[in-house]
Amino acid sequence: MDNQTRGLTLVFTGNGKGKTTAALGMAMRAWGQGMKVLVLQFIKGGWKYGELRAAEKLGPAFEMRQMGEGFIRDSGEEGLKAHRAAAQEALVEARRAVQEEDYDMIILDEINYAVNYGLVDLADVLDLIRSKPPRLHLVLTGRNAADEVVDLADLVTEMREVKHPFAAGIPAQKGIEF
Amino acid sequence: MDNQTRGLTLVFTGNGKGKTTAALGMAMRAWGQGMKVLVLQFIKGGWKYGELRAAEKLGPAFEMRQMGEGFIRDSGEEGLKAHRAAAQEALVEARRAVQEEDYDMIILDEINYAVNYGLVDLADVLDLIRSKPPRLHLVLTGRNAADEVVDLADLVTEMREVKHPFAAGIPAQKGIEF
Repeated sequence: MDNQTRGLTLVFTGNGKGKTTAALGMAMRAWGQGMKVLVLQFIKGGWKYGELRAAEKLGPAFEMRQMGEGFIRDSGEEGLKAHRAAAQEALVEARRAVQEEDYDMIILDEINYAVNYGLVDLADVLDLIRSKPPRLHLVLTGRNAADEVVDLADLVTEMREVKHPFAAGIPAQKGIEF
Repeated sequence: MDNQTRGLTLVFTGNGKGKTTAALGMAMRAWGQGMKVLVLQFIKGGWKYGELRAAEKLGPAFEMRQMGEGFIRDSGEEGLKAHRAAAQEALVEARRAVQEEDYDMIILDEINYAVNYGLVDLADVLDLIRSKPPRLHLVLTGRNAADEVVDLADLVTEMREVKHPFAAGIPAQKGIEF
């Protein structure tokens, strides 16, 4: 493989809006280039109807997989267990997908947040990045990306919140937040 | 109109990767919610085959319009004239689309850059934002967003470059840069 076709590791982190949406836009671009894309969700409840329907429309080469079952209402110990189970399930799926070498781009949505929250181990994520086939683009999103993840990445953007409508008392809007 | 359904003005700025892709991801989400989306290009040559093909697939409710004709090869005075003509054409289209009230989300891609580069007047852009129908989501992308634009916006994210593969000598990759 020459340097012209090199799979990259990308990280979208920071406290501002645009991390998952940037990954989705990139997935859309890659899909348009005839690439096969997989989006895996590490935090349950993050995706809404809009992106799922669009992914469905783009068809079999644009897969979005949600882990676990249903919305987690319990925010206590039971809720944490369910979140951890979903994130671990996503990690297993991610390993399988990376090794299959069937995808051109894999997006690990909110994986940084999952690490930060203790739902998956940082060491497992670093192993996953290091085991990436050379041609695969791997995209990791979520706030508080670990320094070790940043070190391994080729491209890192910090989405910094300058202004957010919630601060002005404006509730979540259809088409923007969901 | 109640506060629950309020069209927002969003700005994605900064020197990092992810501004246009975040806008595209947001457009994809809005489209999936049944919204009608228009993406207008203020800087020629920014879009590549990937996103155009995906937009085409999503169909008539997801429009992407490129202004001007062809790629501008001349980077001198003639090239600047052509860039200005394309950006002005995009501004006319944007005004028309905003007034038509036919769209739910309009993305003015690279408009901040166009203002900063002197291709369109800041005053015209501020007028456009102020004339927005209350339910329309307006998204402005591009580095160096003017302070006055940030002041008028509801949501602003700065995409800050932490690391970029070009710095490590890695050329633009299919699915990532184009």
